[in-house]
Amino acid sequence: MPYYIGDVINDHKKLIARTPETFEKSGVTVRLNTHVAEIDTRRGHIHLTGGDLLPYDTVIVATGSTATIPSLPGMDYPGVFTLKTLRDGITIKSYLEGHTSRSALIIGAGFIAMEMSEACVRRGMDTTVIYRGELPVKQWDPEFSTMIRDEITGNGVTFVTGHSPVAVEEGGEASLRLLTDNGAFEGDVIIFALGVKPNVSLAEEAGIMLGHTGAVKVDATQKTSIDEIYSVGDCCEVFHRITKEWVYLPLGDIANRQGRVAGRTIGGMPTVFPGVVGAQSFKVFRLEVAKTGIDERAAEKAGYLPKSAIIWGSPTARSMGTADTIGVKLVADGETGRLLGAQAVGTYGVVGRINTLSACLWSELDLDTIGFMDFAYSPPFGGAWDPIQIAAQVLRKKL
Amino acid sequence: MPYYIGDVINDHKKLIARTPETFEKSGVTVRLNTHVAEIDTRRGHIHLTGGDLLPYDTVIVATGSTATIPSLPGMDYPGVFTLKTLRDGITIKSYLEGHTSRSALIIGAGFIAMEMSEACVRRGMDTTVIYRGELPVKQWDPEFSTMIRDEITGNGVTFVTGHSPVAVEEGGEASLRLLTDNGAFEGDVIIFALGVKPNVSLAEEAGIMLGHTGAVKVDATQKTSIDEIYSVGDCCEVFHRITKEWVYLPLGDIANRQGRVAGRTIGGMPTVFPGVVGAQSFKVFRLEVAKTGIDERAAEKAGYLPKSAIIWGSPTARSMGTADTIGVKLVADGETGRLLGAQAVGTYGVVGRINTLSACLWSELDLDTIGFMDFAYSPPFGGAWDPIQIAAQVLRKKL
Repeated sequence: MPYYIGDVINDHKKLIARTPETFEKSGVTVRLNTHVAEIDTRRGHIHLTGGDLLPYDTVIVATGSTATIPSLPGMDYPGVFTLKTLRDGITIKSYLEGHTSRSALIIGAGFIAMEMSEACVRRGMDTTVIYRGELPVKQWDPEFSTMIRDEITGNGVTFVTGHSPVAVEEGGEASLRLLTDNGAFEGDVIIFALGVKPNVSLAEEAGIMLGHTGAVKVDATQKTSIDEIYSVGDCCEVFHRITKEWVYLPLGDIANRQGRVAGRTIGGMPTVFPGVVGAQSFKVFRLEVAKTGIDERAAEKAGYLPKSAIIWGSPTARSMGTADTIGVKLVADGETGRLLGAQAVGTYGVVGRINTLSACLWSELDLDTIGFMDFAYSPPFGGAWDPIQIAAQVLRKKL
Repeated sequence: MPYYIGDVINDHKKLIARTPETFEKSGVTVRLNTHVAEIDTRRGHIHLTGGDLLPYDTVIVATGSTATIPSLPGMDYPGVFTLKTLRDGITIKSYLEGHTSRSALIIGAGFIAMEMSEACVRRGMDTTVIYRGELPVKQWDPEFSTMIRDEITGNGVTFVTGHSPVAVEEGGEASLRLLTDNGAFEGDVIIFALGVKPNVSLAEEAGIMLGHTGAVKVDATQKTSIDEIYSVGDCCEVFHRITKEWVYLPLGDIANRQGRVAGRTIGGMPTVFPGVVGAQSFKVFRLEVAKTGIDERAAEKAGYLPKSAIIWGSPTARSMGTADTIGVKLVADGETGRLLGAQAVGTYGVVGRINTLSACLWSELDLDTIGFMDFAYSPPFGGAWDPIQIAAQVLRKKL
């Protein structure tokens, strides 16, 4: 019976709902608040901090990721946070409730930063997002990241570009002051949302091979370079079906699927993780944002000849008279017409369409196929030609 | 240059927006309010009622469908309607505005009847749906049609089962009385929503072959049994990719795609209509209803060994705390695990999921593939395991 290290079940609600007792009823021993000091692969046992030894047949390394914390002076001031775990969220919330919290500085502009900016505005805080680049969430192309920026600023967030943090110090009007290479900002809390890094030290020290991304290298059954050791979740790499490369993509749904693959394989039902197409989404204020596959830059790098088209339309039939909009960008290979990627932003029906396109990417369909595909049309949910069909037809004509 | 007969552009809004002048600028002659008496396929011309002759190289028969009107006594009373065209809708609306309209009887329980019942309730009318069967919209299985029934009755519609209409006569308390085989009902308007029939008389008289469904038989380029004559839309059959049979499925999105196939083919870019998977949807009050593929009965008939599973879940992550629900039923072949059909009902995110499953059906994917597919997960739009993945995994275990 394998021991689980770390958050193999990374749906925190579930982790809380399933108490150790629930697991133990199924014959699984759970040790919370237990630190693994070392995996001794020669002797086949695990050292716990404190001295205990646990022998193993199989180990799953599911050590997850850690929020990137810049090494700046003043990072240890109360009111300076990162956000990665459920515990981080609870800590920030109770701090906000216990202290004067009129203003927030959020450093970074990925989708965690976007979501945090909305959460702070909803608490009534003056909210500033400070970013070294120009446009937020760089996984999306400028046509769409401009809309995302406008959505947060239209909801009262100040979006400051071209500033990198240099130090944190005590504030004057607010509790804290953030010094940047380009001026200072004050806020009662400062939240660093600069992404995550795979948590690989335990694996590395055990002699497990890392991939070129710095995350644990695994095969299609989630096995590492050492036979009895598997790895799943934010600490390991994942195979990208479109680029055919191993990438680092620390997302919760991928972690869950990897866990299932490893569990089935170890349990005697060998299963192959079929890879990802890079589907992801978030919501900020009224805006639904999603993407799948690769953009033109990645497509060129992977040896395709990408062409793209954007269409702007309505996610429902125009006869419905709603004000909802949707923008759909498709990228396809110019030689074969094969779909390579899609991005969409809008106020309704965005994620369902990107998931539909993910299924198309999965099967390597081309634009003409997608343009003639059969969808469940009715006016509340789309036009007789769905925006994704219109986008496919517009792009096909450009090839 | 082909002449267009009937509503090849069956998006009425567009037809209105595109005046004859717009078409004529592109070199297309449009004759509205013009009746075709005969297609003379030997001489290669069309007879218009009134005597004009139009020579042709190619004809597209796009004569659409007609609402089923039962031959009952009293069908010619003012206030008795069917609903098929935009004009029908306008006629009903202006009648309701010009007459006492406190109550409506709707005969039939397909999705037009469901949508009309909502429209009447929203106008403040006492609304009764009268149906000879037990559960509405028989394309959906009882687990879901029960919910649809409860949705309309929960919103004030009276749903009467096991009654067939026999005659219409003048009413006492309301304007009209409907006699059924099982008692009488009164209403100020009576709307018959009993489905449609393909409008094939013009084609039939021209010697064009009909299929076993009674609609015009076409090939994959929409060509009829006569070389120069094509047919598209509600008057013709369509190829079903799952059963590999030609079926009658008069839906607006299919008509549009067929029109494009015929247009491209006639215009010198031969195009094949790839068929349908049977995707369809409607909305009634808060309930989103969609399906794709085939049910167990059709699967057995087509030679599969169907197995099915239903799951009930949340269309968003449970951590979002919303009350939205979704039910997903999947049907798969017991031997191969290949997905054959899906139905879903719920208050959010139903159609996007059915479209995703339509793309999976299109590529003949199996349950294990769908269970491990990559979707754009984030809490506002689903769990780390999407309901369709959970359904795929539950059903896979039953095979």
